[in-house]
Amino acid sequence: MSALPAEPIYDVAQLGHVELLTPDLEASAQFFTDVYGLYRVAETADAVYLRAWNDDVLTSLRLTAAEQPGLGHVAWRTTSPQALERRVAALEERGVEGAWHDGDVGHGRAYRYTGIGGHEQELYFESEKYRAPEGQEPYLPNQPQKFAPHGAAAAHIDHINLLVPNVAEASRFQQETLGFKLRERLTPAGAEEVGAWLSVMTKAHDLALTKEPHPTEGRLHHLAYAVESHLDVIRAADIFMEQGVGVEFGPAKHSRTQGFFLYVIEPGGNRIEIFTGGIHIFSPDFEPVTWTTEAGGRGTAWGTPVPESFHSHATPPYPVATGAAL
Amino acid sequence: MSALPAEPIYDVAQLGHVELLTPDLEASAQFFTDVYGLYRVAETADAVYLRAWNDDVLTSLRLTAAEQPGLGHVAWRTTSPQALERRVAALEERGVEGAWHDGDVGHGRAYRYTGIGGHEQELYFESEKYRAPEGQEPYLPNQPQKFAPHGAAAAHIDHINLLVPNVAEASRFQQETLGFKLRERLTPAGAEEVGAWLSVMTKAHDLALTKEPHPTEGRLHHLAYAVESHLDVIRAADIFMEQGVGVEFGPAKHSRTQGFFLYVIEPGGNRIEIFTGGIHIFSPDFEPVTWTTEAGGRGTAWGTPVPESFHSHATPPYPVATGAAL
Amino acid sequence: MSALPAEPIYDVAQLGHVELLTPDLEASAQFFTDVYGLYRVAETADAVYLRAWNDDVLTSLRLTAAEQPGLGHVAWRTTSPQALERRVAALEERGVEGAWHDGDVGHGRAYRYTGIGGHEQELYFESEKYRAPEGQEPYLPNQPQKFAPHGAAAAHIDHINLLVPNVAEASRFQQETLGFKLRERLTPAGAEEVGAWLSVMTKAHDLALTKEPHPTEGRLHHLAYAVESHLDVIRAADIFMEQGVGVEFGPAKHSRTQGFFLYVIEPGGNRIEIFTGGIHIFSPDFEPVTWTTEAGGRGTAWGTPVPESFHSHATPPYPVATGAAL
Amino acid sequence: MSALPAEPIYDVAQLGHVELLTPDLEASAQFFTDVYGLYRVAETADAVYLRAWNDDVLTSLRLTAAEQPGLGHVAWRTTSPQALERRVAALEERGVEGAWHDGDVGHGRAYRYTGIGGHEQELYFESEKYRAPEGQEPYLPNQPQKFAPHGAAAAHIDHINLLVPNVAEASRFQQETLGFKLRERLTPAGAEEVGAWLSVMTKAHDLALTKEPHPTEGRLHHLAYAVESHLDVIRAADIFMEQGVGVEFGPAKHSRTQGFFLYVIEPGGNRIEIFTGGIHIFSPDFEPVTWTTEAGGRGTAWGTPVPESFHSHATPPYPVATGAAL
Repeated sequence: MSALPAEPIYDVAQLGHVELLTPDLEASAQFFTDVYGLYRVAETADAVYLRAWNDDVLTSLRLTAAEQPGLGHVAWRTTSPQALERRVAALEERGVEGAWHDGDVGHGRAYRYTGIGGHEQELYFESEKYRAPEGQEPYLPNQPQKFAPHGAAAAHIDHINLLVPNVAEASRFQQETLGFKLRERLTPAGAEEVGAWLSVMTKAHDLALTKEPHPTEGRLHHLAYAVESHLDVIRAADIFMEQGVGVEFGPAKHSRTQGFFLYVIEPGGNRIEIFTGGIHIFSPDFEPVTWTTEAGGRGTAWGTPVPESFHSHATPPYPVATGAAL
Repeated sequence: MSALPAEPIYDVAQLGHVELLTPDLEASAQFFTDVYGLYRVAETADAVYLRAWNDDVLTSLRLTAAEQPGLGHVAWRTTSPQALERRVAALEERGVEGAWHDGDVGHGRAYRYTGIGGHEQELYFESEKYRAPEGQEPYLPNQPQKFAPHGAAAAHIDHINLLVPNVAEASRFQQETLGFKLRERLTPAGAEEVGAWLSVMTKAHDLALTKEPHPTEGRLHHLAYAVESHLDVIRAADIFMEQGVGVEFGPAKHSRTQGFFLYVIEPGGNRIEIFTGGIHIFSPDFEPVTWTTEAGGRGTAWGTPVPESFHSHATPPYPVATGAAL
Repeated sequence: MSALPAEPIYDVAQLGHVELLTPDLEASAQFFTDVYGLYRVAETADAVYLRAWNDDVLTSLRLTAAEQPGLGHVAWRTTSPQALERRVAALEERGVEGAWHDGDVGHGRAYRYTGIGGHEQELYFESEKYRAPEGQEPYLPNQPQKFAPHGAAAAHIDHINLLVPNVAEASRFQQETLGFKLRERLTPAGAEEVGAWLSVMTKAHDLALTKEPHPTEGRLHHLAYAVESHLDVIRAADIFMEQGVGVEFGPAKHSRTQGFFLYVIEPGGNRIEIFTGGIHIFSPDFEPVTWTTEAGGRGTAWGTPVPESFHSHATPPYPVATGAAL
Repeated sequence: MSALPAEPIYDVAQLGHVELLTPDLEASAQFFTDVYGLYRVAETADAVYLRAWNDDVLTSLRLTAAEQPGLGHVAWRTTSPQALERRVAALEERGVEGAWHDGDVGHGRAYRYTGIGGHEQELYFESEKYRAPEGQEPYLPNQPQKFAPHGAAAAHIDHINLLVPNVAEASRFQQETLGFKLRERLTPAGAEEVGAWLSVMTKAHDLALTKEPHPTEGRLHHLAYAVESHLDVIRAADIFMEQGVGVEFGPAKHSRTQGFFLYVIEPGGNRIEIFTGGIHIFSPDFEPVTWTTEAGGRGTAWGTPVPESFHSHATPPYPVATGAAL
């Protein structure tokens, strides 16, 4: 048996929740509720907790007031309490120095650490299920909440894209310590790896890592929620334009992951995606796809041009502005 | 730690392939290729091997000539060679008496056994990847084959529905020996469980078990391939009607799994579905949904009536016809 | 030139507006706004005027309080003032005894008469354009109103279906006096014509006439608004179910007109459709299609069964209930 | 009555057919059949006649071998023989010197003339209906041909875009002599009109006229066929890429007409569109929309950038190449 390859690890279940920082908490909260279509479930003096109608947990997004936009932290939910212990042990064996805390609105104790690339990350298992209050009960009991769409009706949290100084190193770290599966990577001819798409179960990606162009760390490229169909993305584009939120990029089809997408910048300055589709990977021995060329229009599946801002804008801005975002 | 619940098992990766029996091999093969949209990849004197354009393995369906239609066998692919050994050990510990064989077109050694409910089942790991021949290479390298749709363009194998005499028992067996996760079940008021929907990873179901109404075993309700969107199901309905293959049921939306579907009977007599969507389950502590009532139109999500044949027809027919199917 | 066939008449431009009667004005108004997705533009003591977001006129629907549900009147807008005079002359030449009135909210003088089959009808030209108030201006100026969907987001008034004792006679009358074009008709083998689909311009139908089964006149089968895509109909079905408004029939595809549809009964008792697609007819010498058989599943395009209520329910109910609708 | 505005004219029914010139007849014919999805219905030594599956006439496209790509002619079908005579009289009254000819495959006598802007145009009425041969009969009799999609499955001819030196003059000519209705126009601040969208019945456009940037005449910007849904355009994009036909622009949403589109260059060099949706105009007093600014992303509805080639490429190329196209 010694010749067998190591088994895949299924200790991380999902992208659990994300904390975004915003210099204009109220404007961001208004965007995420009225335009993006989320629901406000709790708030404190400096934070608003949100959920999507099809998230089965209480909350998947925390907005926190801050000087600058950017990522507060990204939290991965494990498949069991035991898996949580195993992954924390793996992190610590690797030299990560994190700390346990008691949790937050919607989840229990969590292990907080700084990942490769400088982003605050969290591992946790205990999560509060969403129980629809009176008037929000769904018609079909296999759905957490009534479908009464408003705005873009973002359905559930899907994936996050982080900028990292060393893509190959950060990708390897996610694979080795947390069992992420590498699905696709982008390695321009003669250059270092500039993108990696990793998933925890069968999606094309829960986490994308792309190359940080500046001498800085911890920046966010974008956060994505999913919708059910291409038409929902198209409808979202119409709704964003009508609401005065310009679409930065899309609707179009990614070559990597094959998802159908659009991106906007929320009022706090963070880039937010509406995503649907994408390939699903069921084979346990799926071979990661290496993209070696950007020629021939394969930056996007149909050759849709990528706007310059998609490469230059991230949060917090670089160099960090003093006093104001964007 | 002794109070912790058992961890979920991730040893089965996917519904790997299915063997269908047909009394008219050539007519069935013609249906699955020209109408359903699969590709013929190999054949022997009494069998035809098929693949869908988005299956990443060589073949997901074997058609075998037989007196009667029905299920030849259903095969589950494990997540690793080690997982295969573990699951075979779990089966044998449970008293299952199966046997190893050397494999078939597209896959390596496999453990064949008779499941609870009388269906031939298989566990295996080694599988042959599809390598697109010249002219079939895809434009995007993260896709196994060129998308050049014909017929209903079924994209990849999705799930199977088996009739079993005792749903609760068969469901428990799948959970306990193979780590299937129970997602939904149907228990009419005051009656025994008549349906169970189980999955191996994050889908709403890879396997549905429904109540066999007759004193028999081993029958097939239906086999489903997936397509990407609702419109692909609608297009398939138009194509089936044009090709003289009447739609038995749908397009409509299931209440269980929330998939959008249609069913036809292939020329050999087996029921075949085109399926899209369906809820995805990312939470590791998802609580199975118990449906206790059929009232209020929830047999289907919008109240679309279920045809009587959907309850009465399965393969092989009962009582087994002598000499001819259907 | 005497051998030339008569030229087609293009004097009627569109189904302009409809008045529905309802025994529960407030419940009906709430349905049409909150669930169906229309907007309230005016009201009087016993009437509410509504518009769809993509209607370019002020109002396309008047709800009027009444003892019984049913049709108040249906109004056809002509292509010019001159066309209005010509069509009134044609009606009067045919023996119709109508009367001019000064108009109503949203339109100018109109000729009101009783059509063949007993329905109140109107011809008019002058119509008030919708001018979006502040906050409702669209992003794109070729659209009357901001797209900020709520409920089923019905987009514009599309067609109406009236029950008539003699379909062939009523159809001929619409063709000869108003220039309606016969597109399709249903004539079961050996029976009289039971359905006629007529249009004024290039749609598959603006008016459907179907056989009244009872010795009565003037009843409404249904009124339809259009949406843009199949997915909008599917979304509407989900929304209706969530709002407690059961879907009577559909989503499915009509064989006649090939539209994709669903029907619900509004709280006042009238049947209301959400419709999309349908064939478009550009050829000026299009030959009407005669359907002679209902065999083979062609009552609907894919064989979806037609509920009995679709044949038995119309408004007002028959025999007319005393004191309460439905 | 003298104060009444002139009545709208409904003498032209549709864009009937188009002749495209191509320097590589066989490659163009192969593209239009295998990739675009049309059917070959007749051919001569130097021409191939094609139809779309949902055209109700025999043929809507003629490809003719020529030195250079470009427009052979565009043909408008009238609503009656009488309308044909009226429109020819109107043309001749305006000083147009055309000539009658006996027709071509699929249509009868036609009046050929050179339009404002230098394009060969034709008016005709008599057209040969398509009668599906055995094996091509549709399941539904209100459809001309079986739906058995291949390639992009272009459904029916939709509109054409011609470059003209003087948009306002050419637009006025189409309105005054043929009764085209102006729907939208683009007049950049302080500049002459650079675009006009005109229709004959209720579509957003059957004809677009855009500004010819060079001192030349008679050039084609693009020809469009329609498909039913957004998803059909998206599917077409995938199919074009897989077939090695790069997408020039789209899928995206036009601001003018609001259609959802994509463009490719066929092997002969002509630009071809796949189009769906677009606003429909039912009001007879629709006020043309004047677009005065390109700011704010309204070149396309969502801000999708317009490639430079979309402004620079037309056929024949300018200056005309000697010996070879593109």
